Amino acid sequence: MKRIFLLALLWLQGGLTTHVWAQTSDEPQTNYVDLVNPFVDSHRSRWFFFNSACRPFGMVSLSPDTDTAQSWGSGYLYDSKYIRCFSHIHNWQMSGVAVMPTVGAFRGHRGMDAYQSAFTHEGEVAKPGYHKVQLTDYDVTAELTSTCRVGMHRYTFPASEESYILFDTGAYLAHGPTAYSEVWPIDDYRIAGWAVMQRTGRRPKDTPVYFYAELDKPIAEVVTWSEGAVRRNTLPERISGKDAGLAVRFATKAGEAVQLKVAISYVSVAEAQRNMQAELPHWDFDAVRNDSYAEWNSWLGRIEVEGGTHAEQVKLYTDLWHALIGRHIVSDASGTYLDLTGDAPQIRQIPCDASGKPRYNHHNFDAWWGSHWSLNILWSMAYPEVMDAFCNTMVDMYRNGGLIPRGPSGGNYTYVMIGDPAVSFFAAAYNKGIRNYPTEEAYEGLVKNAFVGGIRDHAGYEHNADAHSGGMRYYEERGYVPDGRTDVRGMHTTGAAMTLEYAYQDWCLAQLAKKMGKMEDYARFMRRSQNYRQVWNAESGYMQPRGVDGAWLPNFDPLELTERGGFCESNSAIYTHYVPHDMPGLISLFGGPERYVARLDEQFRRGEPYGFFRSNKHKEGNWTDYGNQPGTGMAHLFNYAGAPWLTQKWVRRVKAAYSDITPYGGYRDDEDQGQMGALGVLMAIGLFEVDGGCAAEPYYEITSPLFERVKIHLDTRYYEGKTFEIVVKNNSAENCYIRKASLNGQPWQDCWFYHKQFAAGGVLELEMGAKPNKRWGVNPPPSSSEVF
Amino acid sequence: MKRIFLLALLWLQGGLTTHVWAQTSDEPQTNYVDLVNPFVDSHRSRWFFFNSACRPFGMVSLSPDTDTAQSWGSGYLYDSKYIRCFSHIHNWQMSGVAVMPTVGAFRGHRGMDAYQSAFTHEGEVAKPGYHKVQLTDYDVTAELTSTCRVGMHRYTFPASEESYILFDTGAYLAHGPTAYSEVWPIDDYRIAGWAVMQRTGRRPKDTPVYFYAELDKPIAEVVTWSEGAVRRNTLPERISGKDAGLAVRFATKAGEAVQLKVAISYVSVAEAQRNMQAELPHWDFDAVRNDSYAEWNSWLGRIEVEGGTHAEQVKLYTDLWHALIGRHIVSDASGTYLDLTGDAPQIRQIPCDASGKPRYNHHNFDAWWGSHWSLNILWSMAYPEVMDAFCNTMVDMYRNGGLIPRGPSGGNYTYVMIGDPAVSFFAAAYNKGIRNYPTEEAYEGLVKNAFVGGIRDHAGYEHNADAHSGGMRYYEERGYVPDGRTDVRGMHTTGAAMTLEYAYQDWCLAQLAKKMGKMEDYARFMRRSQNYRQVWNAESGYMQPRGVDGAWLPNFDPLELTERGGFCESNSAIYTHYVPHDMPGLISLFGGPERYVARLDEQFRRGEPYGFFRSNKHKEGNWTDYGNQPGTGMAHLFNYAGAPWLTQKWVRRVKAAYSDITPYGGYRDDEDQGQMGALGVLMAIGLFEVDGGCAAEPYYEITSPLFERVKIHLDTRYYEGKTFEIVVKNNSAENCYIRKASLNGQPWQDCWFYHKQFAAGGVLELEMGAKPNKRWGVNPPPSSSEVF
Repeated sequence: MKRIFLLALLWLQGGLTTHVWAQTSDEPQTNYVDLVNPFVDSHRSRWFFFNSACRPFGMVSLSPDTDTAQSWGSGYLYDSKYIRCFSHIHNWQMSGVAVMPTVGAFRGHRGMDAYQSAFTHEGEVAKPGYHKVQLTDYDVTAELTSTCRVGMHRYTFPASEESYILFDTGAYLAHGPTAYSEVWPIDDYRIAGWAVMQRTGRRPKDTPVYFYAELDKPIAEVVTWSEGAVRRNTLPERISGKDAGLAVRFATKAGEAVQLKVAISYVSVAEAQRNMQAELPHWDFDAVRNDSYAEWNSWLGRIEVEGGTHAEQVKLYTDLWHALIGRHIVSDASGTYLDLTGDAPQIRQIPCDASGKPRYNHHNFDAWWGSHWSLNILWSMAYPEVMDAFCNTMVDMYRNGGLIPRGPSGGNYTYVMIGDPAVSFFAAAYNKGIRNYPTEEAYEGLVKNAFVGGIRDHAGYEHNADAHSGGMRYYEERGYVPDGRTDVRGMHTTGAAMTLEYAYQDWCLAQLAKKMGKMEDYARFMRRSQNYRQVWNAESGYMQPRGVDGAWLPNFDPLELTERGGFCESNSAIYTHYVPHDMPGLISLFGGPERYVARLDEQFRRGEPYGFFRSNKHKEGNWTDYGNQPGTGMAHLFNYAGAPWLTQKWVRRVKAAYSDITPYGGYRDDEDQGQMGALGVLMAIGLFEVDGGCAAEPYYEITSPLFERVKIHLDTRYYEGKTFEIVVKNNSAENCYIRKASLNGQPWQDCWFYHKQFAAGGVLELEMGAKPNKRWGVNPPPSSSEVF
Repeated sequence: MKRIFLLALLWLQGGLTTHVWAQTSDEPQTNYVDLVNPFVDSHRSRWFFFNSACRPFGMVSLSPDTDTAQSWGSGYLYDSKYIRCFSHIHNWQMSGVAVMPTVGAFRGHRGMDAYQSAFTHEGEVAKPGYHKVQLTDYDVTAELTSTCRVGMHRYTFPASEESYILFDTGAYLAHGPTAYSEVWPIDDYRIAGWAVMQRTGRRPKDTPVYFYAELDKPIAEVVTWSEGAVRRNTLPERISGKDAGLAVRFATKAGEAVQLKVAISYVSVAEAQRNMQAELPHWDFDAVRNDSYAEWNSWLGRIEVEGGTHAEQVKLYTDLWHALIGRHIVSDASGTYLDLTGDAPQIRQIPCDASGKPRYNHHNFDAWWGSHWSLNILWSMAYPEVMDAFCNTMVDMYRNGGLIPRGPSGGNYTYVMIGDPAVSFFAAAYNKGIRNYPTEEAYEGLVKNAFVGGIRDHAGYEHNADAHSGGMRYYEERGYVPDGRTDVRGMHTTGAAMTLEYAYQDWCLAQLAKKMGKMEDYARFMRRSQNYRQVWNAESGYMQPRGVDGAWLPNFDPLELTERGGFCESNSAIYTHYVPHDMPGLISLFGGPERYVARLDEQFRRGEPYGFFRSNKHKEGNWTDYGNQPGTGMAHLFNYAGAPWLTQKWVRRVKAAYSDITPYGGYRDDEDQGQMGALGVLMAIGLFEVDGGCAAEPYYEITSPLFERVKIHLDTRYYEGKTFEIVVKNNSAENCYIRKASLNGQPWQDCWFYHKQFAAGGVLELEMGAKPNKRWGVNPPPSSSEVF
């Protein structure tokens, strides 16, 4: 077991500029980068899952693409045999700028199937900020690194008169075709271009991506193609249209390295060029890679651990890395960004600080659906400035387009999933004191979202401005959204799930209102937050869908996974526990803690043989599901029913079921842009917030950490303390139960403590044992559900 | 014969805003608009020739397109049977936003061949600012009008459930294909979109055009198509890609009028929308049409005539209208414009005045090649603010792209034609006191253009930045550009023509330098201006091409029209007279005035049977050519050789040969964006400037006006006087000779007078007769060619 020290932690101003990693101790420096394994579970998953040459939330995520034909099962897949290109954008509904070195007869115009290369895992390196891989068909060694907005390539070629670098600007990349692209050489060393990503069912408008590239070797010849027709030219020659691209040819000597820098922007080629000027004016590849490592070490090192197995540490930092990478920046170094919310595209500017730098960055992201059990907690603890950036992105979109978004992409709304999960994000931020955004405007937008015409009123991908499939009229009038509605459009038109989520979101809004002193709103939304009771069927003991006529829908099956069942990507068995804001109320519906614990424990016992993962083949596995958000808070609920030892037990067992660090496991289903990673971190360090940290006075629940010591470095711009430490004695896989605890040296009997105690800094000491201490932690966390 | 009065002339601030046309007299108001006939010579010519619904230099030029397949022989052609669309941009290398109403089965996706309609000239009206035409296939009456940047349509439909308005954004329009377009409904009343005009051999980069449209009737259904596949939708639905378009369907009652407004911009949809807000927020079609008439009356009325035949008046105002319409505005109402000169597209802003309005507009235009005998003279006399706008456009491009342009299009250089004709434009402006642009920067750019690396160094369409086919190295070293060079690219690599034009341009630069007090430059460029002598072959008595070895090229034929002959779109017979800046020098090369007049007169006598138009069939007609610029100053040269009566005679005869006001004549060849129109005006009013008005002390030559009275209203922001009037007594077709003259009541013996006399205002009185007065005007105009 390796002792881990954090030697230097330089808080990053704005979090995204590079810095020098300085050693301040004689102890060897912990290299968190080496504890991250990007290959974990890379045999499958989505376009944006795999990011190697990428900074935290980097606008550029440059990595090899083995598969490009769809959004799912694409990007870098470990078992694929061929690399088709190295592309720069692996984002929710966004992709772009495919580059590929080739050697020998030109095949660029014949598409990726023709110019792809076999590759080998032998000698392959993938780390946060670096990728090295051998293209065996071409005898080319490709190395990739990046700054936030610039990808840097180093291709070591064999001796050849025909060494090429292809810019396949017209390529089909994951989410859809490229509708149009234009690319041109500026001079012997520079290339620029842009492409229009065709709209998809999710991202409803064509979206441009611009790039500006520099080479460190003069171009000998330019080759362009369009719709299969190839044309060889000397400079200058440009190409545009459909299926267009440009390649540059050089003569290379054996072992000659050619370097390439590619900056991107969603605003203009000029902004892409400014991004390169701002971030990467030089040609020192190794310096960029080392800066990237240093930046990653700084970010990853905010959570320091000792103990646990090496595999557990690898999984922890791989999880943490996923939580810090999936939701990429889309604004420029200058602060310009593309706004596609309105009638027409607009270029807008993020406000700048006194030094002329943008005060925050805009991000592109899938919905916050379920993030109250993952990202919201993790970021608000250790990365509060990230919360600010996302809050600002959303408030700017409210200003621009009239709605706080649910999963914005391409500078526009996508209406992915259901409800208004952003309210839990804002409530956690605001109630923990993270408030560097226009808070009143944010509140105004969140209130708008909670009524007819707000974002809840849009079902999944229901882009129509007049959309109502989110059923807010029903919710306002009846307190629930019925299922079996015939007038719905979009996806996920699951009334029972909507009802439960809306009730939780009403409570989040109430807690935000309370903290802001808006006591009338507080009362109003607290009342609505009890609406979860509208879908509780006391006879069956389940949350159940109701029809438009108010009656329970017939043929109820708690394990039914289809949308017909009324629940969103899940079932009644799981959603029945979805009352994160009023666990005392839910428990009383069950008839008290004993009955509730019995049911919940039984579900875990029935789910365990299936790895706590839903099964499409074996319905009997569907009692738990840690492969999708609705089920990811369940193991923590025992804390609310006086049985914290069962939370301790099941959290450890779930964690073990997701402990794989090979390319063939670790997340099982969709990692979902850092959500499963963040959940993994929270489980591993032994803290959680079932209510998403949204209570007016937020608090953390204590679970069973994997490690001997966890030290969270607090951001002193936000929090008073410097570190919050968890010291875990006598910990092991068997000794998973908390025997006793102390906080700052004083005995601690509760299975929870307040955020203000966390923010002040301190030490939580846990003593573990192989048997539960059923007297410790039996008082449930504070209920914020006073009745109105 | 109709008496014409100018009743109200409201000078337009900036020249482009609409105003109320107020009558200030009891006399009936002259409606100049009614004297313009857009159909003149409309059976042929180019895409940008025909402009009906268009303001002076309007960004929008909305008119029916009968032919769309190429740049030449397209737009509105009088004898064509079908209208394919109504499109909004008829510009040099620019086109866009095709709209078409149809009735009955939808055919939008099948292209213009399928959805075009037959039309009839019966009841058709085309005037400056208005077009009305019946689409007989659909029983739709289409009416068009416009503001500067907004086209307005009024379609009167029959009763139908299937009345459509098509937005064929992906259409092929004149200059090339549309590479990509995107179009979408904003709501039930509004449509927006944009298209990428594919680059052409002339306009070297793909260029966007954006539009924003409003309807006054709600859309019942949206139909979209792409590459032939059609899709029917309710709102909202957008389409993009290649060959894409969108149609809106309505149910219409018999005789129901549907109105449409379409604003354009080359910057963004948002700017297009702002253009509509700024210029056309209402729905009063007749008011827009009347405003357009009023604006045209104000512009056309700056030159007032009495007398002549009705046909002569129609030709005059049709000519004048062409001179004020062909070179369209490309900047937005807010002053934003697209700059494509650099490595990457840039959106830039024209400086604004105190009220926040842009100080000038940017224009798109074919070269100034030959405009020293047409537009430069006319505009500097009557429209000095137009000179300022074009000078500013060119200085901004110098700042942005490093070169004063020669025919900019799409915000970029095109390198159309040869030389640096802009220098004559600037010299005429500056030397007449038109200086509201950065004059030192302009001068700096013009000097740069006069050496290796400047614009003269680029031959026609030679886009390569390292271009040298303009032969400036030869010109600098030898004083001439040889023909028969083997290392040339581009078009018009005609060394003899280059030599003659460069010599004139050197003189223009010298005159500008002199006026600016740069006496060293003055001497330097005056010396170079004598270079025309390098291609004078004293043995043949012709200007002739020389080879790279310095010898005259063999097989010389003065009537040879191909480029092999060394001259640009002309021949030696015509270019031999191309020394506009040193006629005394040229005449002495010929052996004195008598010999010179004999030769020139013989050329006109030989050209007359061919209508003074070059002939490809009958070479013997090629002694004169008023169908292309190089020959358009020739009739005025007699004034310099002591034979002004021959200028009087031949100018009247040439004018008569171009007097057709039917759709089948009037310009014979390329009207060329107002150049032939302006020449026609100058011939008709009896003033000219062989040297282009570029002398440090500019002056006008007096020729033989067509009218009894010509009154030019001076712009008092530039000129001291209010009007300059020419009173012509005893004038008729036979009485074409000036018997005597007076200026401001004093006898006037010269065939010329200074611009400062013109600018001070005054009256020139001419008494005409059927026989020449060979004693009048025999002293030639002042020579500005002192020898250095």
